[in-house]
Amino acid sequence: MTILEKIEKPSDLKIIKKELLPQLAQEVRDEIIRVVSNNGGHLASSLGVVELTIALHYSFDLPKDKLIWDVGHQAYAHKLLTGRRDRFDTLRQLGGISGFPKISESEYDAFGAGHSSVAISAGLGYATARDLNNENYKVVSIIGDGSMTGGLTSEGLQNAGHLDKDILVVLNDNQMFISERVGALAGYLAKLLTAGTFKKLEERVKKFTSRIKFWGFSVMKIVNRVKVMLFPGMLFEEMGFAYFGPIDGHNINSLIDVIGKIKNLNGPVLLHVVTKKGKGYKPAEDDPTKFHGIGPFNIITGETTGGKKISYTEVFSDAIVKLAKEDDKIVAITAAMPEGTGLSKFAKEYPDRFFDVGIAESHAVTFAAGLAAGGLKPVCAVYSTFMQRGLDNIIHDVALQNLPVVIILDRAGLVGEDGGTHHGVFDLSYLKAIPNLTIMSPANENELQDMLKTAFSLKSPSVIRYPRGGSGLPGFNYQKNFEIIPAGKAKLEKTGSDVCFVAIGNPVSECIKAADNLASKNIKAAVVNMRFLKPFDEAILKNIIKTTDIIITVEENALAGGMGESVKAVLSGTDAKIYGIGLPDCFAEHGAQNLLREKYCLTANTLEEFVLKLLKKEQNLI
Amino acid sequence: MTILEKIEKPSDLKIIKKELLPQLAQEVRDEIIRVVSNNGGHLASSLGVVELTIALHYSFDLPKDKLIWDVGHQAYAHKLLTGRRDRFDTLRQLGGISGFPKISESEYDAFGAGHSSVAISAGLGYATARDLNNENYKVVSIIGDGSMTGGLTSEGLQNAGHLDKDILVVLNDNQMFISERVGALAGYLAKLLTAGTFKKLEERVKKFTSRIKFWGFSVMKIVNRVKVMLFPGMLFEEMGFAYFGPIDGHNINSLIDVIGKIKNLNGPVLLHVVTKKGKGYKPAEDDPTKFHGIGPFNIITGETTGGKKISYTEVFSDAIVKLAKEDDKIVAITAAMPEGTGLSKFAKEYPDRFFDVGIAESHAVTFAAGLAAGGLKPVCAVYSTFMQRGLDNIIHDVALQNLPVVIILDRAGLVGEDGGTHHGVFDLSYLKAIPNLTIMSPANENELQDMLKTAFSLKSPSVIRYPRGGSGLPGFNYQKNFEIIPAGKAKLEKTGSDVCFVAIGNPVSECIKAADNLASKNIKAAVVNMRFLKPFDEAILKNIIKTTDIIITVEENALAGGMGESVKAVLSGTDAKIYGIGLPDCFAEHGAQNLLREKYCLTANTLEEFVLKLLKKEQNLI
Repeated sequence: MTILEKIEKPSDLKIIKKELLPQLAQEVRDEIIRVVSNNGGHLASSLGVVELTIALHYSFDLPKDKLIWDVGHQAYAHKLLTGRRDRFDTLRQLGGISGFPKISESEYDAFGAGHSSVAISAGLGYATARDLNNENYKVVSIIGDGSMTGGLTSEGLQNAGHLDKDILVVLNDNQMFISERVGALAGYLAKLLTAGTFKKLEERVKKFTSRIKFWGFSVMKIVNRVKVMLFPGMLFEEMGFAYFGPIDGHNINSLIDVIGKIKNLNGPVLLHVVTKKGKGYKPAEDDPTKFHGIGPFNIITGETTGGKKISYTEVFSDAIVKLAKEDDKIVAITAAMPEGTGLSKFAKEYPDRFFDVGIAESHAVTFAAGLAAGGLKPVCAVYSTFMQRGLDNIIHDVALQNLPVVIILDRAGLVGEDGGTHHGVFDLSYLKAIPNLTIMSPANENELQDMLKTAFSLKSPSVIRYPRGGSGLPGFNYQKNFEIIPAGKAKLEKTGSDVCFVAIGNPVSECIKAADNLASKNIKAAVVNMRFLKPFDEAILKNIIKTTDIIITVEENALAGGMGESVKAVLSGTDAKIYGIGLPDCFAEHGAQNLLREKYCLTANTLEEFVLKLLKKEQNLI
Repeated sequence: MTILEKIEKPSDLKIIKKELLPQLAQEVRDEIIRVVSNNGGHLASSLGVVELTIALHYSFDLPKDKLIWDVGHQAYAHKLLTGRRDRFDTLRQLGGISGFPKISESEYDAFGAGHSSVAISAGLGYATARDLNNENYKVVSIIGDGSMTGGLTSEGLQNAGHLDKDILVVLNDNQMFISERVGALAGYLAKLLTAGTFKKLEERVKKFTSRIKFWGFSVMKIVNRVKVMLFPGMLFEEMGFAYFGPIDGHNINSLIDVIGKIKNLNGPVLLHVVTKKGKGYKPAEDDPTKFHGIGPFNIITGETTGGKKISYTEVFSDAIVKLAKEDDKIVAITAAMPEGTGLSKFAKEYPDRFFDVGIAESHAVTFAAGLAAGGLKPVCAVYSTFMQRGLDNIIHDVALQNLPVVIILDRAGLVGEDGGTHHGVFDLSYLKAIPNLTIMSPANENELQDMLKTAFSLKSPSVIRYPRGGSGLPGFNYQKNFEIIPAGKAKLEKTGSDVCFVAIGNPVSECIKAADNLASKNIKAAVVNMRFLKPFDEAILKNIIKTTDIIITVEENALAGGMGESVKAVLSGTDAKIYGIGLPDCFAEHGAQNLLREKYCLTANTLEEFVLKLLKKEQNLI
């Protein structure tokens, strides 16, 4: 029996001899590597915090004390140690355990996660509630260095310093974020690491005091450098935090010692821990970006298994480089997702025209607005779910001023295994009301290229949203010239008088397949590819109901406020029978993208079945 | 002829003798006071930056150089000096000049504003575009101390430090924000002020070095205090900015001197300027919160003119205090708007249960989620337009975890004179798709009380949205017991078979008045008060069309994605003729609330007219 097998709950951990904890760490690490190699997942981050997780579980009393994991993609060790070991094989699978902390999954998950920079605000909420309720427990927020860029972290830090609550923030500094850490704070943290190893303090003090006499503009930078080396953590101390660190995040017993010393301090405390992403698995240590979020892979070689298909992301990646070659006003912005959005290729080709602003979606959009006001043509690529943080910037800074910013929403729709925190199924709804905005969604990879060209041809802002993965159309070849699509012009993909699919985005391709299948059963299904949510092609809809009165709207977005409602609004007062397919009014779970799409009737087969049932019902009714 | 009258454009300013500039400042100040006393407006902030504005106009070349005003409510002097003096009497009035910088209004307005914390991000965009375009101009972002709390400012500062562009950030420190400055940064800035007047530097250095020997946990706080006094601005320097200041923001010539010295420095520069809100007008100096945004007032007494009516804000203010008395789990959060949201009364009664987090809407929501997870009942009150910054927090932290946070959206609908940046006309659309969320809007002040009680009775999150001002119902008395409304239950306010208004929120009261007026013309109009956007009462709608087939939906929200679309979706396939009244697909302008409501057909009179015309048309058609 391994040590890990003895741990059913955090309290079991506390009776294990301290000298055995490194062995436990190895077992946890092996189990994480084994399961993620099968299921895919966030490997590098979770491997990086194995020792930290054990030390925290050892030092605090869960579930009474609250551990709040920022982003949450590093919580696999936490899950293994909190009664979910026997279900760990189901990680990220439909019906299995989530890849993120989840309140409804375990009493040991004090706060759910998925998006970054949330943990300090949430932890401060807990700490404040505790004090008002006269309760007595510890609150620990664990946050990566990459999440420090996020404005929400700054807001949380400032408010924590102001309220002066007892809260421990563990800054897990792995010296890089999802791809590469950016921002002034990254340089600052790097300097802290230097300061931590700093030996000859007194000598430096002398040097420093001799320089202070020359205080003035010209020596300011030097003085600045010296004082940082003297006082690690001053930035956090200015915010009202007592700063400790940096300490080695892979030495469990030293972690336990330090946490033991500081856990009962009053007021906000920040512990700076240095870890290595991918720790203990060489392929992940060597390429933590590849192993950040990864599909199933071969443990020995580190190679991913399973074939690779053309994705919208890749097509965007190539298309934007091509367009940028023809137009040197095009610049690109992303928020810590150069690989995820495909902009890394652009970054390589045009480093001066590429901006990774770090995890800072709000800034990404307003910065893009400034670039557009300054005469450039910015494209800002962010995942749909993260752009929920940029809504005000899109409204107030971009659309209100009618600035020609092109917004790319990747991972729009059901993302699959990452689940509820990551599905990009609200964007059509939260964007629809914004004036001046053109909203597009391509039916396939070629159309994405055309829409990108269309977006840059506009003198106003636009959004293009597309899902994770590709259309999967067989024999599809996406090399061709890009063509501008007239704004607001839908496309009749197939004619047919029995029923008409009215779809937007990738589901259009599924509708076409369904229509082809139905044709073999002598059912004539038309397919309208709306292409634009705004402007909305009302004419084609009013025309289509002249030939068929059964309309099925299909979108990979919430039904509430989505495209289907727009169709119903346009056809209000007619006797068209309109059925809406899309996401119902609940948060979709995690699971393979194809399984979720089947569940929500967004595949060719399920759409075909839907029509067959519907027509049977209609015929009985008539 | 006054000096001000000689200035048609910023270059005219430069030929004025420096010694006359204080006189110009006085003239500008007098003109601002005169016009705002008639029109209402943001008086205190604009008075505070008169000298700073003159100094900036004097030091830079507009419109080539770019001045970017954060929030923008301080830009009246800027407007007076940039060719808008002759239209200044129309400030904030329908068809007149805007109360905020606006790209479309003047080439001297480099970037529009209204919301806070945008200026550094936008300025960095300009600076980056300038360099890529090989242009040569200066970029100056002017930002108040209150806006420093906003996460977007932190994101912008970090990215600016990282990109190392030439940009000047003027920190206009008036030592208080809209009500009272909060957050750790406020304390930090206060310390900077102390440091700025610090005399005996050498002595302090000695003290400091003697203490450094005791470096350790216990003396950390002392060391911290000493080092801050030694190095003003280090926090900004850590972010990559060269820091200068603090300097007196009311001494024009010293401002011009300092700006002249630093304007050609490379890299990001921060100039810390200290000003007094309301400067030069005693009533505003004494009570800058009252004079932040104010209606017309008597210049001599400082008293506001015009009567005061019951407002939704006031009713909320009293109701939440009453409910909090009965339930000590209720806590309240706002983001720098205790007076604006009416929570100042709660703050006075329950200071320990009240949290003003500063301008930090995202944090306000996630902090509330943490409070709810910790077992409290938080109410989070923010203006509708500012909650656009909290969308992701509502989705990811509140709704996904189904935490019982009560979100109050004040200023939902047309706000009036503040205009396009401030209208809260998108919230129904951007919230509708969020699962688990109950969305309510009261028809009058009594219903607000009931809805508040209803919200706290739910075990899930909810939103209550209501407009600026009150229902204005004559003889209205809002004292009564609060009653829980069954979730999702609409109310038939009036029966009638000719036409049916289906409305939500304050417009319901206007529909009732319109129906009463129509009754005198023998037209029977029913009125349905939907009360809830979610859950949506489909049954009442399906029922109502049994008696009338003409439905008029009325909402003070964008038509796109709003309640009207939900009505059309529910009644899809029926032959009900549904007409939607609400905001069309463009940004509504500024102007008096009643005039805007007339324009958009949201008053009893315009609704009555609409029905009369509609019935005439229908009768002709039949």
